[in-house]
Amino acid sequence: MDQNLFFKRKGPYLIKDLFQNVESENLSISDINTLDNSSTKDLTFFDSIKYKYSAEKTKAACCITTKKLEKYLPKKCIKIIVNNVLFELAKVTKKYYPTADIDYPDLNLHSPDKSLYIDVKFGNNVLIGNNVKIGKGSIIGSNTIIESNVSIDENCIIGSQIIIKNSIIGEGVIIQDGCKIGLKGFGFISLKIKNIKFPHIGKVVLKNNIEIGSACTIDRGSIDDTVIGENTYLDNQVHVAHNIKIGKNCMIAGQVGFAGSSTIGDNVSIGGQAGISGHLKIGNNVKIAGGSGVIKDIKDNSTVMGYPAVPLKKFIKEWKMKWTKIQ
Amino acid sequence: MDQNLFFKRKGPYLIKDLFQNVESENLSISDINTLDNSSTKDLTFFDSIKYKYSAEKTKAACCITTKKLEKYLPKKCIKIIVNNVLFELAKVTKKYYPTADIDYPDLNLHSPDKSLYIDVKFGNNVLIGNNVKIGKGSIIGSNTIIESNVSIDENCIIGSQIIIKNSIIGEGVIIQDGCKIGLKGFGFISLKIKNIKFPHIGKVVLKNNIEIGSACTIDRGSIDDTVIGENTYLDNQVHVAHNIKIGKNCMIAGQVGFAGSSTIGDNVSIGGQAGISGHLKIGNNVKIAGGSGVIKDIKDNSTVMGYPAVPLKKFIKEWKMKWTKIQ
Amino acid sequence: MDQNLFFKRKGPYLIKDLFQNVESENLSISDINTLDNSSTKDLTFFDSIKYKYSAEKTKAACCITTKKLEKYLPKKCIKIIVNNVLFELAKVTKKYYPTADIDYPDLNLHSPDKSLYIDVKFGNNVLIGNNVKIGKGSIIGSNTIIESNVSIDENCIIGSQIIIKNSIIGEGVIIQDGCKIGLKGFGFISLKIKNIKFPHIGKVVLKNNIEIGSACTIDRGSIDDTVIGENTYLDNQVHVAHNIKIGKNCMIAGQVGFAGSSTIGDNVSIGGQAGISGHLKIGNNVKIAGGSGVIKDIKDNSTVMGYPAVPLKKFIKEWKMKWTKIQ
Repeated sequence: MDQNLFFKRKGPYLIKDLFQNVESENLSISDINTLDNSSTKDLTFFDSIKYKYSAEKTKAACCITTKKLEKYLPKKCIKIIVNNVLFELAKVTKKYYPTADIDYPDLNLHSPDKSLYIDVKFGNNVLIGNNVKIGKGSIIGSNTIIESNVSIDENCIIGSQIIIKNSIIGEGVIIQDGCKIGLKGFGFISLKIKNIKFPHIGKVVLKNNIEIGSACTIDRGSIDDTVIGENTYLDNQVHVAHNIKIGKNCMIAGQVGFAGSSTIGDNVSIGGQAGISGHLKIGNNVKIAGGSGVIKDIKDNSTVMGYPAVPLKKFIKEWKMKWTKIQ
Repeated sequence: MDQNLFFKRKGPYLIKDLFQNVESENLSISDINTLDNSSTKDLTFFDSIKYKYSAEKTKAACCITTKKLEKYLPKKCIKIIVNNVLFELAKVTKKYYPTADIDYPDLNLHSPDKSLYIDVKFGNNVLIGNNVKIGKGSIIGSNTIIESNVSIDENCIIGSQIIIKNSIIGEGVIIQDGCKIGLKGFGFISLKIKNIKFPHIGKVVLKNNIEIGSACTIDRGSIDDTVIGENTYLDNQVHVAHNIKIGKNCMIAGQVGFAGSSTIGDNVSIGGQAGISGHLKIGNNVKIAGGSGVIKDIKDNSTVMGYPAVPLKKFIKEWKMKWTKIQ
Repeated sequence: MDQNLFFKRKGPYLIKDLFQNVESENLSISDINTLDNSSTKDLTFFDSIKYKYSAEKTKAACCITTKKLEKYLPKKCIKIIVNNVLFELAKVTKKYYPTADIDYPDLNLHSPDKSLYIDVKFGNNVLIGNNVKIGKGSIIGSNTIIESNVSIDENCIIGSQIIIKNSIIGEGVIIQDGCKIGLKGFGFISLKIKNIKFPHIGKVVLKNNIEIGSACTIDRGSIDDTVIGENTYLDNQVHVAHNIKIGKNCMIAGQVGFAGSSTIGDNVSIGGQAGISGHLKIGNNVKIAGGSGVIKDIKDNSTVMGYPAVPLKKFIKEWKMKWTKIQ
């Protein structure tokens, strides 16, 4: 099995060591993955009807799910029926990845050995972890921290006072000062006294020619990855939560926030301070007006505005009707 | 009298040295405190009917207030009647605490003497002020600054590029990269040419098992403290203004903003980008939808949405009515 | 011609080397500037009827504009007629200023030579570029970076973990921890595969006695400057985009966002999380309620609220009408 680049994985474990009263109890489970990405040695999870099509096609050996949803899974997939999918998933994930539920600061940082980074320029006090790759032509600004196993491709300009961890960064990516990329997202099982922190074993993938404005936060994926597509530009203070997928050629203005696990198409433009709720599908060529609050899926080629957001034409119609009544 | 842990206090002053034409002019005033927390040697202030119940019970020796409000104060409390309570308070507070109105950077920072911090791990270039306490099992990430007199309890994970000042932090607290905690809040007396900056003599108190996402700002209290309760989790880019009290087991999503001096109950969940105005009381078990703008108190167990926020049922009813009229 | 303080300028170029088929082809063009600020040796641009009055009075030798707008320009100004003004402007600006389209980290940083900075206090690990001026009585916090040619006047308190570049800062300015000031704004020509980044050759000008809260981002101007007036205070996490002009004595609460090129008058107060769209003119003494979305110009002395923002009285009237119908 592929290693996780960023987190030490334990196991494999036998299925009987993970769950009680389960069939095929001596089956060995290597890793945890999404419905789409699981191999036949993996455990996956299925907790919302939204992911029905992925469930039907999953290759996973075994899946944590609910009584209601199990029927969508392939026959040969072993079903682990539970009440709270994410709670069980958190427990198992913690067993495989005991250090992914907290952002333990990388204690292997050191000044870059410049003989290893050919044609790379470094500012002052740059700190690099072990096994960091940086392509030629790249520049890393002062006081920036790049934690172990991060890879940055050629001709990237990484500003100052940045932290990058658990990330794979393409060519020609510009990251402005103060960004925090690859951190654990906001995922936990809510309990009195002490919540259970959800391990985040995914990464951040930034494709080629992206530009990220100052002071953005881009969280890594929980089980999946957080991915931003080629030539997409983010303005300052944008918050990208775990598992978000943003397409190519998008334009995301300042202070926009994405809640977790939504998918944004290509050529999408989003105005300042708009918010996108979790687990949504925003189509291609969508325009979202500044300040909008998007709480539903949006089809390709739509323009929306409002809180909650509606098609722009409807928004304008309602707006005019309202104000003709009031002087 | 207790010392202020973080700011050097001058005085005590005689009341006649603080105000003109005042009774009991040789009474000595030790400190400045809130209505609730004042001892019989303290000066307090009372500037809004919202704090009537606290005013009635205050033990303060003396209180800056208005002609309209003085009647609510206990008989034995000396009333200082003014037109602008906060203006007079700022002047007196500045007299007791001449360095609390600006965040003067701590110039006593140095590398931690590791012999003093048993079983604490430090990243690179950590800077520590004088008399900083850090409990065993804690980890402090690289480039982080912990200013003088801050105390951090056991098993805390403090990320990288963080600043903590004027704060008391409980056990098992996680603070993600880039947070700024304990800074002066946004308080000043507005004047042409040059505003008067309001001294902030309070601190930030983070209780046990809190998690704070990346790039949050948590300002310290002005006269009071800013307090976050046990097991409350904040997502990235949350802004917590001065004097905010957040209860236990709350869940605050990304980019939420709290204006000053509001009180949030226990088990409250607040969706992304919501804003909470100043001086409000939000009850226990309240749910606030993402993007909402809360400008009124909210009772226990309510769910609200909208800008301004209203009960969710009303919001949905209005929403449906509006759109049935418009196709 | 004046030098640009922060970016190396190439040229002058003959007009025929910049554009094809142009009159006065051997005219030498020194620099690029706004309609208002151009000298008779400069190239300017005019792309919106909003700037008609500036166009009529420009002294620029030559102006990139459209067929529709050229009539507003003075006779003696040579018109370069194009379809996409900003696209042509970006190309020419890149020719004059080849390094202003990306924030290349300053690689000339070093510890301050304290003999050069009389009566200035520095925290630990401060990094200073070449030719940085800092006035007496100022304090610079730890881990802060001040890039080349920045000037900071007397009695400023610059916190820790700050980056300042391409900026001129007045007397008595307070900047709280973690701010990023003078960065390139969010300007580019959107193209598939790879956008064209718009060079930002302007600066940030902060006048006297300003206070900037923690974690704000203030982008420098593109062709123009970004300017904040005397005695204006910003709370935490405010985003000020390129070319914004904010007047004197303003009060900008937390998480407010300004899109590019708007002008804000004096004595304006803006509540938390409000957003101001681009290219607007907000008058003097305007009050904007928290959470508002301003998408139109606002006249002097107005109070507005809502998304989109309307006069407060209208907002309240509509609000009451709406809710009297719904129980």
